[in-house]
Order: sequence, then structure tokens, then C-alpha cells
Amino acid sequence: MTTRPPIRLSDTANRLSASAIREILKITQRPDIISFAGGLPAPELFPLEEVRAATNAVLDTHGPVALQYSTSEGHLPLREWIAAQAGIGARNVQIVSGSQQGLDLLGRVLINLGDVVLVENPTYLGALQAMAPYGARFVAVPTDDDGILPAALDALLQQQPATLLYLIPTFQNPTGRTLSEERRTELLTVAQRHDLLILEDGPYSELRFRGQPQPTLFELDLARVGGDVEQVRVISLGTFSKTLVPGLRDAWVLAPYPVIEKLVQAKQGADLHSPTLNQMIITELVDEVLPKQIERVRRVYGERCRVMVDALAAAAPAGVHWTDPEGGMFLWLTLPDSVDATALLPEAVERGVAYVPGAPFFAQDGEGTNTLRLSYVTVPPERICDGVATLGELLSART
Amino acid sequence: MTTRPPIRLSDTANRLSASAIREILKITQRPDIISFAGGLPAPELFPLEEVRAATNAVLDTHGPVALQYSTSEGHLPLREWIAAQAGIGARNVQIVSGSQQGLDLLGRVLINLGDVVLVENPTYLGALQAMAPYGARFVAVPTDDDGILPAALDALLQQQPATLLYLIPTFQNPTGRTLSEERRTELLTVAQRHDLLILEDGPYSELRFRGQPQPTLFELDLARVGGDVEQVRVISLGTFSKTLVPGLRDAWVLAPYPVIEKLVQAKQGADLHSPTLNQMIITELVDEVLPKQIERVRRVYGERCRVMVDALAAAAPAGVHWTDPEGGMFLWLTLPDSVDATALLPEAVERGVAYVPGAPFFAQDGEGTNTLRLSYVTVPPERICDGVATLGELLSART
Repeated sequence: MTTRPPIRLSDTANRLSASAIREILKITQRPDIISFAGGLPAPELFPLEEVRAATNAVLDTHGPVALQYSTSEGHLPLREWIAAQAGIGARNVQIVSGSQQGLDLLGRVLINLGDVVLVENPTYLGALQAMAPYGARFVAVPTDDDGILPAALDALLQQQPATLLYLIPTFQNPTGRTLSEERRTELLTVAQRHDLLILEDGPYSELRFRGQPQPTLFELDLARVGGDVEQVRVISLGTFSKTLVPGLRDAWVLAPYPVIEKLVQAKQGADLHSPTLNQMIITELVDEVLPKQIERVRRVYGERCRVMVDALAAAAPAGVHWTDPEGGMFLWLTLPDSVDATALLPEAVERGVAYVPGAPFFAQDGEGTNTLRLSYVTVPPERICDGVATLGELLSART
Repeated sequence: MTTRPPIRLSDTANRLSASAIREILKITQRPDIISFAGGLPAPELFPLEEVRAATNAVLDTHGPVALQYSTSEGHLPLREWIAAQAGIGARNVQIVSGSQQGLDLLGRVLINLGDVVLVENPTYLGALQAMAPYGARFVAVPTDDDGILPAALDALLQQQPATLLYLIPTFQNPTGRTLSEERRTELLTVAQRHDLLILEDGPYSELRFRGQPQPTLFELDLARVGGDVEQVRVISLGTFSKTLVPGLRDAWVLAPYPVIEKLVQAKQGADLHSPTLNQMIITELVDEVLPKQIERVRRVYGERCRVMVDALAAAAPAGVHWTDPEGGMFLWLTLPDSVDATALLPEAVERGVAYVPGAPFFAQDGEGTNTLRLSYVTVPPERICDGVATLGELLSART
């Protein structure tokens, strides 16, 4: 029997890599660890009974339809609901299996090999992973505590054209930062000047627990073009993963129709359609359950965030800075330059605390070695205090 | 207000197109039409009560887990069950959202722009759609009533190398044909001679209603390499869509680990993971419900196929030939060369009968204009007789 030669993988396969975070998460899932490393919503807040009731209602009234193949565009009543929220028509809404699929399919229909994709610095790791296989070349736009600097973006675009700018303007992952309203307007002006397409990812924007709500870039742009969605230059990604539940995998893309038309075709090739039952369950929940659930999640996450910020103020040594988010799931620590958060992690884990080092969130290697991300949402308040105290001791010994 | 220039789409987007069948299906969904055009399983056979019971059991016992994010590889108990069926380990099983996603992700990790992908002639349209975006160049392998001709494949491979051969060896879509066991062995010999990778798609193989079961190519190859899955050259796609229900979107890929490893990474970028709840529902059903369900579907589809074949024998004019499948969902008609099945469709629809013209299933344009596909699975027996009688009249007027 001859041995088969290795199977040749594609160039795209060679651009894929395992998520740095994912490997860390595996280590930190031990029950004895206080883990601030996760990116998962708090499961004890899931509306379990409501999901059960919705599921039974769907199976009772539309069983065979719920279990049959359906359309690539997505379940029409759900698309109509999403469209109504955004003030547009259902033809500009594509249902996707999680925002991650939205990123993948948008990468597929928008990005050519070698195209420049502008990103925040740091940015969401999953977006890099989704767009890298299409050969995107990521270029970081300078940011400060209020997010992207419009003047820096303008300067960058004068040097080189870009296919699109990807950003999470509200309660960003990983920093928890929010782009100010003034900057939003400036950003759109710069985008218009350079004919730049913007991909706005908004998974956390409903989770505001204090401060004033901001309009989304999509809303601002839609108003700017007089409500004609075909003229917007902002493509918007939204999801039910952080407000309802992530395990059903339902999210959406809002875009001008020529993009939607190609997304439908891409979706057909990618997986035909998102599961029918899941979309119908979500549709049952959007009117009554979703608003209550958003209130509940906001309240609990707000409390946990406050506990973490107070604990940091009590425990962190001088030279350590952190963001103080008004919503979302994450808080970002900047350590003194000399402290390497990746190198520190094994020691932290040994002492029973886990976090995600910040470096993988930067598009360029070698940046952000002194940063780390903390999630406050899945840890009960007392454990947050204990975990932050341990982290504080650890950092005090290094700074 | 200036008008935004059109959004530039990627080269991949320009390789995407709407499915020819999908547009036809839209027309033929009128309730007054007897439609043999669908590719959907019969919804009245769905195990609705069993799915409901399984869903409630999952939500009762594992609610928060079922609604939370989960692993990209898929739900381990489901992977273990699938692996046990195939006689391999779970590490060689990747869960995907329908076989369509398996095709997409395999295209992503295996195909480079311009690579030759060999296909049956005709072949499954969805496979062409999934692999075309990656720049596959499809080359048809000559076939006869028993499927691919191994000698013709050998000759083709002497002329040009190919990245892989895609085929549905059992109850093929669209023809209903099955590759004979002798040919399966010959095919593997040819593949080994040319170091050819085979992608075996098996959505219908459990749906045999008469004749002797055939080993899959994966099984034959696994036996040939002494059970060492890392040495097989057949990658296998399986699904619960045709045996249980399609709307939950659960399917799988079996492959050597270097391919699985890249599929996991591709899946992570594509949609993180398949819905947790859905995988857990299926896991509840595989031991007790699935075998009964397969028996039920086989019996009903077998009856309907028999009715259609008998009706064709009674109604079809001379010069019309059809396959007589031993399982699956489809039957294939070859008309006299002069009859164009696409041109005939509007007239058929006007008379209340629909089918899918065969031409789109051929990799090369212009082939198979005198062919069409009939599905017998969603039409009750009396309506099958009526529909085939109408089709017979229509064809008699043309031949």
C-alpha cells in the first residue's frame, strides 16, 4: 500500500489561521478560574422560557414550514421587522448566520486580493479573520479615546485608496470605546470626500447602560441622503446574539440593493439559507420579549461594569489606565510600556484570573503588547472584585 | 447632494450568479401547478412531534448551553455519533450548516483560481455554485447510465491534472443514477494512479427503496488503506436534510485531519459555528427517530417513484427515455434531440405542470437542452398520474 501524498491546500487556506483568542479561551474555561477573557453574553440572562414558548408556538402553527428549506434572503416577516426599525424596506435586508457570516459574505462580494481595508486600532479580531481569506490588506487608522480620528483618516486616504473602512463605532470590541457624535459626522464627510465605503458593525449598540444614545453611522448617512437607502455609503451589520441569544445565530446586513443582490447569491452558494426554525423563533420574540430583554441585560451589565471599574480604581497600580464604557461588554486596560500582557497571562492564570492579551486585536504585529481586554458580563460581582484584586497585585509587582 | 458612484463589487462577486433553478421554482410554486420541479423533501413526512419533544428536552436539560455560542468544530456528541457510523474518530468530523456549506468551505480550502474541478455530466447545480466563486474551472467527465466512466476519467487525467473530482455516486441529483460497485473500485484505482482527490456528496444514499445497498467511496477507500482515515483520498459530505429535516441545516464533512483543521478555521471565519440548539436537537433524534424516519421516507418515496415510472410508461411517446432510480428523489428524462425542455416549460406551466429543464445541470453551456428533471417526492400519487399524463400529451405533440 502506497502512502498518499499530502493533500494540497489552497492559497486561501494558507491565509487562514486559528484565532489566538480561541486557544486562550480553551485554557481559561476551567471552573476554578475567574475569567474576564470571554466574549460571550451572560447565559443566566437568556430568556429561556420565552424561547421555549416561541419555539413551541412556531412548531404548533408553522411546523412543516419551520423545518423545510426556505429562501436565501431570510424569513420575510423578520426582514420586515428589521427594515421597519431602520426606516428602510425589506429588500435592503439580508439575514445572515451571525454577524460573522455578514463579514464573510461582505468580504466575498467587496474585497479583491490585495485591497486595503481600513480598521480601528485595535479592532475586532473576528473581522480580520473573516476578511483575511479574501486577501484584504489591513491598514490601521489612528485612534484615541473617542475612536477613529477623522483627520488622520483623511490623511491616510490622500496617500492610498481603500476599499472600505470597518469599524464598531459604539462600545467597541475590544476597547469599549464609543465614537463621539461629532466624529461620526466628520467621518461621513471624509468618507464622502474620498468615496469610501463604510462597514459599520453594531453588535453592542443596544447595550447602553448610561449616557446619551448616539445615532448609528447608517442612520446619519441615511438622513444625509434624504432617506434614499440606495444612496448610502454605510453598510450596517446588526445581530440578535448580544440582545437575545447567540446560539440561534441570527443577524442581518442593511445595504443598497446591488450589494444585497450579490449577498443573496453569495449566501446561496455559502449555505443556501439560515435555519428556518431559528428565524421564526426570533420573529416571535422581537415585539414583546426583545425590548424587556435589552432592559434586563443593560441593567445587569451596567452593574457589573461599575463593580469592575470601582475595583480597578481600588486595586490598579499607578501607570495602569482603563476605559470606562457606557455600554457593551468590554473594558480595555493599558499597562506601562514595559509590561507584556501576553507574557503575564500564564502567571495570572496560575493565580486564578484570566484575560485576553490585547496584541492580537491590532492589525500590525508588535503593537499593543501592553494592553489587555476584560469582559465584565459573565462574572458575578463578588468574583469581579476578587479577580480584579488579584490582577492588581500581579500588576503592582510588575510596575 | 451629490450622487454616490456605484459601489465596486469584487471579482468574486462577478463570478456569482442567481441559480437558474431558483428562478424557475419561484414561478412554479403556485398551488394550482403540479410541480415536479422542487428539490425539497416531503414536509408531511417530517417528524414534527419528535422534533418538538427533542427541542423541549434540550431546552429543559441544557437550555443555556443550547442558546450560547459553541465550538466551530460542532457539538461533540453529534460529531461522535457521526464518526461512529463511519468507523472513524470525531476529530475527522466537521459539522457544517447544510452540505452546501461543506461545499463552500471545501472550495475555500482546496481550490485556487483556475483549478480544474472534474464533475459528472450533468451534476448538482449547487456544487457548481459553491465552487465557482473560488475560480474553479469545471470539466465534465463522460458518463453513461451507470455514472462516471473510469476509463474516460483516466484519459482525461492523462491530458490535464485536476484538483478534485466532485460526484454524487448514489441516486444522483439530477439524474437519479447510481455508480455501480465495480465502477466505484475502478474509480478509486484511477484516482490513486493520478493522485486525485475525490469529493463524495451523499445526501440521498440512505434513501434506497429497492436493490442492494452500495458501499460509499469513502468506505471503500477507508478499507483500502486499512482503516487509516489520514490516508484516504475521499472527502465525504453527509447531511440530515433529506432524512430528518432540512430547515435545521445540519450536515457534516469527513476528511483527513489536515483538511479538517483548515475547515475549522474556515468555519470560524465564515460563521463561527452552526447553531447550537439545532445540533443538540439532531443529537436527540439520531438514535431512535432517525432510523424509523429513514424507513418511512424510503417507503413513501419508493411508492411515488413507482407511480411516476408507471405513469411515464403509459403516457410518454416513443423517443422519450427516463431513469428508473432505486432511491433518492429524482428521475431524469431524455427527450428527442429536437425538443428543447427550457422552451417547452412555459407551455407546461400553462397546462399546470412544472419540471426543471436539464441544461443548467451541465457544466458546459449548450448541453442537455433535451433533458429535464422530475422530482416525485412532494406530489401525491393521483397528482403524479395527472401531471405525467399532461406532460405525455405535451411531449406527444412535439415528437
